[in-house]
Amino acid sequence: MTIFNPIEESKAKGKVKKVFDNIKKERQIKKIPNFWKTIANDPDTLERTWNSLKDIMKKGALDPLVKEMIYIAVSMTNSCEYCIRSHTAAAKKKGMSDKMLKELIAVVGMANETNRLVESYQVEVDSFLKK
Amino acid sequence: MTIFNPIEESKAKGKVKKVFDNIKKERQIKKIPNFWKTIANDPDTLERTWNSLKDIMKKGALDPLVKEMIYIAVSMTNSCEYCIRSHTAAAKKKGMSDKMLKELIAVVGMANETNRLVESYQVEVDSFLKK
Amino acid sequence: MTIFNPIEESKAKGKVKKVFDNIKKERQIKKIPNFWKTIANDPDTLERTWNSLKDIMKKGALDPLVKEMIYIAVSMTNSCEYCIRSHTAAAKKKGMSDKMLKELIAVVGMANETNRLVESYQVEVDSFLKK
Amino acid sequence: MTIFNPIEESKAKGKVKKVFDNIKKERQIKKIPNFWKTIANDPDTLERTWNSLKDIMKKGALDPLVKEMIYIAVSMTNSCEYCIRSHTAAAKKKGMSDKMLKELIAVVGMANETNRLVESYQVEVDSFLKK
Amino acid sequence: MTIFNPIEESKAKGKVKKVFDNIKKERQIKKIPNFWKTIANDPDTLERTWNSLKDIMKKGALDPLVKEMIYIAVSMTNSCEYCIRSHTAAAKKKGMSDKMLKELIAVVGMANETNRLVESYQVEVDSFLKK
Amino acid sequence: MTIFNPIEESKAKGKVKKVFDNIKKERQIKKIPNFWKTIANDPDTLERTWNSLKDIMKKGALDPLVKEMIYIAVSMTNSCEYCIRSHTAAAKKKGMSDKMLKELIAVVGMANETNRLVESYQVEVDSFLKK
Repeated sequence: MTIFNPIEESKAKGKVKKVFDNIKKERQIKKIPNFWKTIANDPDTLERTWNSLKDIMKKGALDPLVKEMIYIAVSMTNSCEYCIRSHTAAAKKKGMSDKMLKELIAVVGMANETNRLVESYQVEVDSFLKK
Repeated sequence: MTIFNPIEESKAKGKVKKVFDNIKKERQIKKIPNFWKTIANDPDTLERTWNSLKDIMKKGALDPLVKEMIYIAVSMTNSCEYCIRSHTAAAKKKGMSDKMLKELIAVVGMANETNRLVESYQVEVDSFLKK
Repeated sequence: MTIFNPIEESKAKGKVKKVFDNIKKERQIKKIPNFWKTIANDPDTLERTWNSLKDIMKKGALDPLVKEMIYIAVSMTNSCEYCIRSHTAAAKKKGMSDKMLKELIAVVGMANETNRLVESYQVEVDSFLKK
Repeated sequence: MTIFNPIEESKAKGKVKKVFDNIKKERQIKKIPNFWKTIANDPDTLERTWNSLKDIMKKGALDPLVKEMIYIAVSMTNSCEYCIRSHTAAAKKKGMSDKMLKELIAVVGMANETNRLVESYQVEVDSFLKK
Repeated sequence: MTIFNPIEESKAKGKVKKVFDNIKKERQIKKIPNFWKTIANDPDTLERTWNSLKDIMKKGALDPLVKEMIYIAVSMTNSCEYCIRSHTAAAKKKGMSDKMLKELIAVVGMANETNRLVESYQVEVDSFLKK
Repeated sequence: MTIFNPIEESKAKGKVKKVFDNIKKERQIKKIPNFWKTIANDPDTLERTWNSLKDIMKKGALDPLVKEMIYIAVSMTNSCEYCIRSHTAAAKKKGMSDKMLKELIAVVGMANETNRLVESYQVEVDSFLKK
């Protein structure tokens, strides 16, 4: 690979080990997924991304499951296979049913179509939408 | 404009008038927004889009408000101003608070960052994610 | 503007003037559009882009009008207002009717929806499609 | 797979079977491609997508082959491998030669370049393009 | 506006005021730009974004000016006008000449074209590139 | 494959052979990579792309390594695996260290996040940025 190999857990130390331990504890998982092992090549990016993600995805005015579904919608629009698969798995753990996923996908498909219709027809923003 | 002017309600007839009337009734609004007035230049697209949208966005396994937020997330990722503004307005009508919108935006921002980190590091999909 | 101002025709000289003259002759227009006047800030980019475009858009196995419509489809997918408007104007000159444009837009909208459905459902490429 | 497995034809029933039969008849094919088998997990999405696609891609002011090429151009811009491969196969059936495909690709490449040049230079829309 | 109004400096307090003060000091500017004033509606996003940005954009193995140019290249590819304009201004302060900006744009345009050629031709990754 | 097979060097003749020879000489490589072999199916696209790329990527006001990194940033934003891998390899040859690559990726990730924050919050361009 011309890019970077994942940092295996047995090789993790210092900041990387600390973040790995925290991920396993918070997520209640036994093995670190490839995303974290790969960005661990840059310990600062690992730490910053994990801290931001943990903070942003926690329960707030929005439910963590709703947040996961928003995450999936973005990942589908960006065609990021890893992101779609990992956040779909996460959302299922939090209670997303197959029926919910199918509806989510239908909305994502439709929104991508109407987004392009708006641009294609160069629809002007209604004045009531700008207040 | 080299593209198309909106079809004013007073000029609507046939299929277009029927859809306009249905939009006003279903959405409980008094004026047709520019999106519908503009795509009305193609009555088939108007009818198909309205019917699909009505069907997809209705209550199902997912709440209509959650669907609106998914719609907004796609529109933000595609940078579609009209779509962001109109679906934000729709979501507010359905109960989205400012706090919810801010959290939604934070998730959208974060997902766009991690989507690119995955591609940049060429992270391999974990075997457990492929079943 | 923090970027670049258009180079007015009266200020064009050397390579820029030569390209401007060629654009007016080939396109049979009297005034240089903003796109060419703006990229003229980099005479090499102006010359390369004009020569490539002239070459790519000329009649070949595909009709110039079909090429314009392909160009518009890409520009709509990328939400480039200038590109949509200018190539729509060019296509109309070459015979694109309003009905053709509406059908083009319907295809663009649909393709954007199904592209995302494919990614969302992670549809596997059929073996017959890979030969 | 964390997402959905294709619905095999032997398992299709009700709405799904009806759509599968219609696809085979209209397209004059013997086997249902993965796209339709996979979105069949959501029978409503299957039916809606097939009906819309059939309607949009049929002969109108634009030739079905031109519509296929517009579809391919969008799919290339969105980097959707499945969509590129399946619609290229469909276009070849309708008469697209290799030479036509190469010209299509050249236009797609060029349009993506100039779209970005327009945004990079922040080119202002000419007043004659806004009518 | 259906979204959020900027938080004026005179209204800033607590976490927002602290970040605003830090931005003005670090950037040596007298007025807070709209980006920061607008995301200040969500003080956590403001703080996290500012801290991450400050950390990521500082001198490291790469020069701050090179980092700004990478930032601009991403923003041009995403067609984000605000981002293009603000980071172009920042890069000019750090020594980017007009000639450098023109070359940057030429690379961005070219990369967008070849990226699409790769997808359009479905070019296979050379084995030597995967090591 | 429904698309095109690479043109092997032993089959290259005329314009294609001339460009292949020039690539090997200029790049000081012994084998032509798949990108060039595949687009060689369209000799005009091969020639035009090679000449443009050679011209754009050469030393100017910007260093060739900086240009490669800008190229990579665009390719990461467009999720083009081939382009990321090949230009990362090229940049390493020109002196990009692992540390530089990690910083580049961090900037790309961050820029993609803030680009979407700008669109999500619909941040207005500051008047000082428009001059």
